[in-house]
Amino acid sequence: MSASIELIPGNTLITKTPQEGRELAIKMARLSIKAMQPDAAVRDKLRPDYADDAGLLIDAGQTIAMEFAIIAQANNYWR
Amino acid sequence: MSASIELIPGNTLITKTPQEGRELAIKMARLSIKAMQPDAAVRDKLRPDYADDAGLLIDAGQTIAMEFAIIAQANNYWR
Amino acid sequence: MSASIELIPGNTLITKTPQEGRELAIKMARLSIKAMQPDAAVRDKLRPDYADDAGLLIDAGQTIAMEFAIIAQANNYWR
Amino acid sequence: MSASIELIPGNTLITKTPQEGRELAIKMARLSIKAMQPDAAVRDKLRPDYADDAGLLIDAGQTIAMEFAIIAQANNYWR
Amino acid sequence: MSASIELIPGNTLITKTPQEGRELAIKMARLSIKAMQPDAAVRDKLRPDYADDAGLLIDAGQTIAMEFAIIAQANNYWR
Amino acid sequence: MSASIELIPGNTLITKTPQEGRELAIKMARLSIKAMQPDAAVRDKLRPDYADDAGLLIDAGQTIAMEFAIIAQANNYWR
Repeated sequence: MSASIELIPGNTLITKTPQEGRELAIKMARLSIKAMQPDAAVRDKLRPDYADDAGLLIDAGQTIAMEFAIIAQANNYWR
Repeated sequence: MSASIELIPGNTLITKTPQEGRELAIKMARLSIKAMQPDAAVRDKLRPDYADDAGLLIDAGQTIAMEFAIIAQANNYWR
Repeated sequence: MSASIELIPGNTLITKTPQEGRELAIKMARLSIKAMQPDAAVRDKLRPDYADDAGLLIDAGQTIAMEFAIIAQANNYWR
Repeated sequence: MSASIELIPGNTLITKTPQEGRELAIKMARLSIKAMQPDAAVRDKLRPDYADDAGLLIDAGQTIAMEFAIIAQANNYWR
Repeated sequence: MSASIELIPGNTLITKTPQEGRELAIKMARLSIKAMQPDAAVRDKLRPDYADDAGLLIDAGQTIAMEFAIIAQANNYWR
Repeated sequence: MSASIELIPGNTLITKTPQEGRELAIKMARLSIKAMQPDAAVRDKLRPDYADDAGLLIDAGQTIAMEFAIIAQANNYWR
């Protein structure tokens, strides 16, 4: 992993709304993949492997839920 | 992902009842899939891949449990 | 998903005992599957796919643990 | 699932020690499987499928961790 | 499972440091496997199945993370 | 596992920023793999198995999320 890659956009888990929190969850999940596979060409090649595969879409959806759980807690659920 | 897609219906995790919380969990899980695969035709084609597959149904059920855990916490378990 | 399907029996996460909480966890896991695959004939056909498969039984057992974690928290662990 | 099956031995999550908590986690995981596959002969037949399979043993180990997380929380980590 | 197998070394989740907590997480994960597959010869035979398999190593790494989450919470994160 | 392997860099879960916390999550996930497969040559050989595989990248991303959840909690979400 390149030491300089941004992993948390804005370097904060705090967002204004649940919607923005969910968008951050998706970005964080994607930046993890980027950290592990920095080659954009490879990532582009892999994209249809999961976007057209029901099982991998479900798995990726679970990652989003996991990231969002952290963000929601950080924001005290925007209560 | 389109920047404009709605990820959290109503932009809140607060619901009146556990039943509504569970419905929100299902919607949030589906909107994650939609964010990753915005093409409705592809999603429709993938649907029988999981709805008729015991393993994928179980995986999707785990996603619902994960989303619901967040929502239940946000609502202090409707106690 | 039919808008009218019951997802949380009794519409509460509160139960009298851990045993009842665990039974609720199993029911909630099953109702998620029902929401995603409303056709009872298909569900019946899929049942032996997982009930006779060690891996899928383990996965389904994890779903029960996930649902029960939520219910146990809601009930303050019946302490 | 038979309505009468015991899912939580002793109907409590409270144990005296971490060791007993871990044993309870294993029992709860097994009772989930029993609830989904009540036929002991089938369960016996499936046992070598996972006990001799590295991947399924890891999956089953994750179930134990998930159950134990609930029990440890219930017991305030035996602090 | 043999009733006498040690599942939590030292019968406590409390450790002096995060490093020791992580070592405990690894030990607990291994003792779960041992409880399910008490035959050392079989475990030894399965070892290369996962140690040389990227997917199973990732799965086993998730188990460690799950066990460590419990231990870290028990130790109030060694703050 | 060698008793001397470092599992938590710096032997603390406390970091200055979310970015550093995420980097720690990635390192902890990698050190788990190293503890289970200490042979660097084998790990190098396995690397393309997951870095070029959409499913394994998603799984590894989930591990990062799991580790980060612990670290974020330890740091009170850097609020």
